[in-house]
Amino acid sequence: MSFNTFGHLFRVTTWGESHGRGIGCVVDGCPPGIRFTLADIQADLDRRKPGQSKHTTQRQEDDRVEVLSGVLEAEDDPETLVTTGTPISMAIWNTDQRSKDYSDIKDRYRPGHADYTYDVKYGIRDYRGGGRSSARETAARVAAGALARRVVPGLDVRGAMVSIGTKGIDRTRWDWAEVRRNAFFCPDAEAVAQWDAYLDDIRKSLNSVGGVIEIVATGVPAGIGAPVYGKLDQDIASGLMSINAVKGVEIGNGFEAARITGVDNADEMRMGNDGQVQFLSNHAGGILGGIATGQPVVARFAVKPTSSIMTPRRSVTASGEEVEVVTRGRHDPCVGIRAVPIGEAMVACAIADHYLLHRGQTGRV
Amino acid sequence: MSFNTFGHLFRVTTWGESHGRGIGCVVDGCPPGIRFTLADIQADLDRRKPGQSKHTTQRQEDDRVEVLSGVLEAEDDPETLVTTGTPISMAIWNTDQRSKDYSDIKDRYRPGHADYTYDVKYGIRDYRGGGRSSARETAARVAAGALARRVVPGLDVRGAMVSIGTKGIDRTRWDWAEVRRNAFFCPDAEAVAQWDAYLDDIRKSLNSVGGVIEIVATGVPAGIGAPVYGKLDQDIASGLMSINAVKGVEIGNGFEAARITGVDNADEMRMGNDGQVQFLSNHAGGILGGIATGQPVVARFAVKPTSSIMTPRRSVTASGEEVEVVTRGRHDPCVGIRAVPIGEAMVACAIADHYLLHRGQTGRV
Amino acid sequence: MSFNTFGHLFRVTTWGESHGRGIGCVVDGCPPGIRFTLADIQADLDRRKPGQSKHTTQRQEDDRVEVLSGVLEAEDDPETLVTTGTPISMAIWNTDQRSKDYSDIKDRYRPGHADYTYDVKYGIRDYRGGGRSSARETAARVAAGALARRVVPGLDVRGAMVSIGTKGIDRTRWDWAEVRRNAFFCPDAEAVAQWDAYLDDIRKSLNSVGGVIEIVATGVPAGIGAPVYGKLDQDIASGLMSINAVKGVEIGNGFEAARITGVDNADEMRMGNDGQVQFLSNHAGGILGGIATGQPVVARFAVKPTSSIMTPRRSVTASGEEVEVVTRGRHDPCVGIRAVPIGEAMVACAIADHYLLHRGQTGRV
Amino acid sequence: MSFNTFGHLFRVTTWGESHGRGIGCVVDGCPPGIRFTLADIQADLDRRKPGQSKHTTQRQEDDRVEVLSGVLEAEDDPETLVTTGTPISMAIWNTDQRSKDYSDIKDRYRPGHADYTYDVKYGIRDYRGGGRSSARETAARVAAGALARRVVPGLDVRGAMVSIGTKGIDRTRWDWAEVRRNAFFCPDAEAVAQWDAYLDDIRKSLNSVGGVIEIVATGVPAGIGAPVYGKLDQDIASGLMSINAVKGVEIGNGFEAARITGVDNADEMRMGNDGQVQFLSNHAGGILGGIATGQPVVARFAVKPTSSIMTPRRSVTASGEEVEVVTRGRHDPCVGIRAVPIGEAMVACAIADHYLLHRGQTGRV
Repeated sequence: MSFNTFGHLFRVTTWGESHGRGIGCVVDGCPPGIRFTLADIQADLDRRKPGQSKHTTQRQEDDRVEVLSGVLEAEDDPETLVTTGTPISMAIWNTDQRSKDYSDIKDRYRPGHADYTYDVKYGIRDYRGGGRSSARETAARVAAGALARRVVPGLDVRGAMVSIGTKGIDRTRWDWAEVRRNAFFCPDAEAVAQWDAYLDDIRKSLNSVGGVIEIVATGVPAGIGAPVYGKLDQDIASGLMSINAVKGVEIGNGFEAARITGVDNADEMRMGNDGQVQFLSNHAGGILGGIATGQPVVARFAVKPTSSIMTPRRSVTASGEEVEVVTRGRHDPCVGIRAVPIGEAMVACAIADHYLLHRGQTGRV
Repeated sequence: MSFNTFGHLFRVTTWGESHGRGIGCVVDGCPPGIRFTLADIQADLDRRKPGQSKHTTQRQEDDRVEVLSGVLEAEDDPETLVTTGTPISMAIWNTDQRSKDYSDIKDRYRPGHADYTYDVKYGIRDYRGGGRSSARETAARVAAGALARRVVPGLDVRGAMVSIGTKGIDRTRWDWAEVRRNAFFCPDAEAVAQWDAYLDDIRKSLNSVGGVIEIVATGVPAGIGAPVYGKLDQDIASGLMSINAVKGVEIGNGFEAARITGVDNADEMRMGNDGQVQFLSNHAGGILGGIATGQPVVARFAVKPTSSIMTPRRSVTASGEEVEVVTRGRHDPCVGIRAVPIGEAMVACAIADHYLLHRGQTGRV
Repeated sequence: MSFNTFGHLFRVTTWGESHGRGIGCVVDGCPPGIRFTLADIQADLDRRKPGQSKHTTQRQEDDRVEVLSGVLEAEDDPETLVTTGTPISMAIWNTDQRSKDYSDIKDRYRPGHADYTYDVKYGIRDYRGGGRSSARETAARVAAGALARRVVPGLDVRGAMVSIGTKGIDRTRWDWAEVRRNAFFCPDAEAVAQWDAYLDDIRKSLNSVGGVIEIVATGVPAGIGAPVYGKLDQDIASGLMSINAVKGVEIGNGFEAARITGVDNADEMRMGNDGQVQFLSNHAGGILGGIATGQPVVARFAVKPTSSIMTPRRSVTASGEEVEVVTRGRHDPCVGIRAVPIGEAMVACAIADHYLLHRGQTGRV
Repeated sequence: MSFNTFGHLFRVTTWGESHGRGIGCVVDGCPPGIRFTLADIQADLDRRKPGQSKHTTQRQEDDRVEVLSGVLEAEDDPETLVTTGTPISMAIWNTDQRSKDYSDIKDRYRPGHADYTYDVKYGIRDYRGGGRSSARETAARVAAGALARRVVPGLDVRGAMVSIGTKGIDRTRWDWAEVRRNAFFCPDAEAVAQWDAYLDDIRKSLNSVGGVIEIVATGVPAGIGAPVYGKLDQDIASGLMSINAVKGVEIGNGFEAARITGVDNADEMRMGNDGQVQFLSNHAGGILGGIATGQPVVARFAVKPTSSIMTPRRSVTASGEEVEVVTRGRHDPCVGIRAVPIGEAMVACAIADHYLLHRGQTGRV
């Protein structure tokens, strides 16, 4: 990981700001021969896109991805692109670049945002819409993740919201199909109406709320990952923690593991009828000693409430004046909702990366 | 991060197994002119050392560190070592290398351990005492961390246990001095007796339990850290998650941030009498947009219960035989306790690394 | 260095092919506050551009650079851009993308080109104009180098051709001003006419020739660079060797050092009137033990003759058919000529990178 | 590459100084299941060892390697070690650590050495025997190289001196068996006597001389290597240039390529009887576009004359006093001789690294 690059062999570098020319990424180290369509990537981007319900910002970001390098059209289908093994550059142009009036935020530090820290660090700051610290950067990750998903045969990475603010779900009602049906990526159909009303209240009270997202990856080959600073769970945690507004990450039963006993936490093993080792539970979240067990990899992350709220908060300006900050305009009352496909992308990238690393070091697949 | 190296500029590579010749680390990129004594490092190692109370394993590991390179004796004091800017190699030799009888664990996969995944990954495994996956590896991190602490002027990194199993603390009684007085690194004097009895019960019932550790770093210069994949919180999370048995990491209020509202979560700002920006709270844990605010950096991590327990658990052998595994011998009923200095070390290393990175890119200190 | 990225802190990632959408780079880790104009970058790009004399290819590449991120307009001058410390993405679009007829090269391996090796490696190859292995990729390096030059105060990096094929120069006539006056970057005015006639002959005989380029950097701060795998000369050699068609690299007197004696090769030292150490010669090329002495850094690299020639050469096709390959169209009879600004860029990037590294580790400037 | 680490997946970190506790390396990312004996490593170390002829320094370095981690004894042969996939730590202890009198070099900068630059960079310097800049560091590379050789099936890496000072060889007499028979690694039996007399003269005149070494690797799988900053030739050049006293590196015909024409330089191709592509010459040195062709990889590097000579050279002290420096004691009149196994090791490491990288990205072997 360097400043704007992550990954060891499957390496993703992102660039861009929310109000400049656009954002993009360069995916280096992708295997040759990976087939995909623009529609594949667009489908993931569309799930992240704002403006899809009353609970996400109404800004219209027309997130059309353009692939600039690293692919050829498939000989058998011009719609299908095939990676050549060279860097895949992708861009998502900012369509609305007209000069807005940012005078109200140019010099004032919005609480919960990175305005102050960018100024302290760099002595200069792109104040337009958050600049580099804007969540818009995450669209580039989603595009990279769409490729990563295709690198590992049989891999499936899905995400769902498991709580919004104080509202959780009933896990016995978990239904992946439901996740695609509602605006919250909620796996519990009965919780949806409750969440809807709850978020309406939050928004009307000029407030916001956070949430917790769970990512589940199946088809993760046993053996990928590595000790001791190349742990698969470590790289997943690192990737998820790099998402804007994320304040916590768990693998498997996570913090719950600290509360239960060793007897209860043990994932016992038996031989399956297929002659393979079978785990009788998955408290570990599919990873032991940093290496995948072959069980589903399970990670959760906590997103803080949207910092841009219409309730005034006390702050200061760059010149030291004390002010009150109110963020006007429509913002997601829960930015966590749109973080679901972003979390999927980061987990997919980490798994693809470790798949290549493992193949490199051991020659096993 | 590669397999056994972490850090960007302040880079730590560790090596070694629990029952081979020893363990060690190479610290590369350390600034020249850092002064320290062997006693400085030993003090941190001693806090991690087993056998210090009835609640940690009674094995006697005489963790004497030897510095093999990268230093000169100070001209004004032969006890003081001064770094020269070249790699600092440190070793901790295994003193008890006599050949034990490992036949009971050689072929059987202990639940919760990395036995199975190492075999799947590498096709070969050092079964003696856990080999590379042994917690003994963490002694090397503690040695590296002792240097890292000295890299950043004014930095102080301290840790404490905030819960053991189901038992927490009363934060209003937090006392850093108390942390050094009890065997649990517990900051709440009144909780100590309760924890003591609780762990006795756990051990007598042939069971184990996990815990949560909180690390607090003060004196972290505002501005260190970086967007977007070189975030300070991300690198801290990555480092903590790389510690054996860690299943979750939080920054600031962490998962609690997902439950409260944006109004409550905002860290408001005012100007201090010293003309510096003052935050009125620290929900963010000292980091915004991946960059330090100058407030204390606060991180917590969850350690799962000790997997080595005397209660039989079902498992299989490498050849597919179904067996029951019981771990004999004394093991910590709560491995989390000894993780406190390890967590401190990982946070200190991340901060030292970002201090150098920030100085490199911006020329600011 | 990964596949398509170089540099430690000043990191450059390039992407793109000769006949796709375009080429570009992402420069990460650039310090904030660096001021430049598009004209600054364009001036360097123009020196690399083909079609400038009869001795370089007549293809018209309109290498206009576009800066996509990482900058703000200077408040005092809208023509001046200021880096913000975030990644600077630059693109140079391919203006002539019409579909040509590549059927004559699609399946046949051109001797001296990477056609065969790309096919062996990836099993798929972008055959259009050389794809990723096209020298067009180097324009992105030149753009990055234009920024690198501005990172180190007082740094000046200049290059010149010191031989073309069998024709050398008289070093006593070295004149940097002359380098800018002729089409060969030749520092010896009297050699120019001779080289001109020589290259005419080469081209008329349907042949090509190589050359040697010398890069001289002044204003390199003493102390930058590092032992033992972060040597400044090593990173310069690595960067120069990564340029297409380069087969050799020298530092200082290079291979000549292997021929002379230790007495003659010693760079003796005396104290200058300014109280600074003065070297009485510079056989070392400004670097000792991988660290800059403060003298001019001198590097040379050898470029092989253009592989695309109109004289038939024997080869094979992807399907194993034996063929003769003739490269039609205008190609540089000496690709080395245009490598001068590319070599400058790679040296400038290495120096900027080590400047930041040194500042990071030692805090010295 | 960081300061003291090289390699992408097969990563080598070295540490140590010439007169401290010892030197060593940590090899990370080595595949599991590689079998070797201590004697294998020792054989390579012994070829680098000083004191083997009157032309190398008479210091007795008893370079016994100790393997500290990352291996198990083979079940079928206790003499054979098997890598486990975890870091392999190796140490070579300094046996003669008695305190010498270094007062004559402590403060004076020896011309050609890194004394001055270390002081400028770090402000502190281990003056004992050159400290970190001592050629003794290269023993650790040789140990790592001995492992690297075993990573790629069928790989053979050999080196020879092709010139000493002004004395070359007759390539028509090249005999690899002869290389092992003489003290110069000279492949031309008739040149040996001439070199012997020449070096005697050099030594008697209190002088020294450099040399050129050629490394030839056969069995390099076609397809390893990568564009454009992960080129195999680039990484070989980087590795060779990192060796002490190396001032130039060539691949294939190297600088000669700049002198000949494209017609002559073309490596034409035909189909072999085995249905494989055959190159009719190897000017390219086995690498095209950074990727191996399957032909022998050929690299050469120039070593400057030994800087430690008994002829006085002018210099200065750390405090600015002008002095004459004479290096007493026996030093190699040509340090290049002992660089042969070091060059082999660096080339072997680069090839092993790219073998793993290629397998990781493409899944091909």
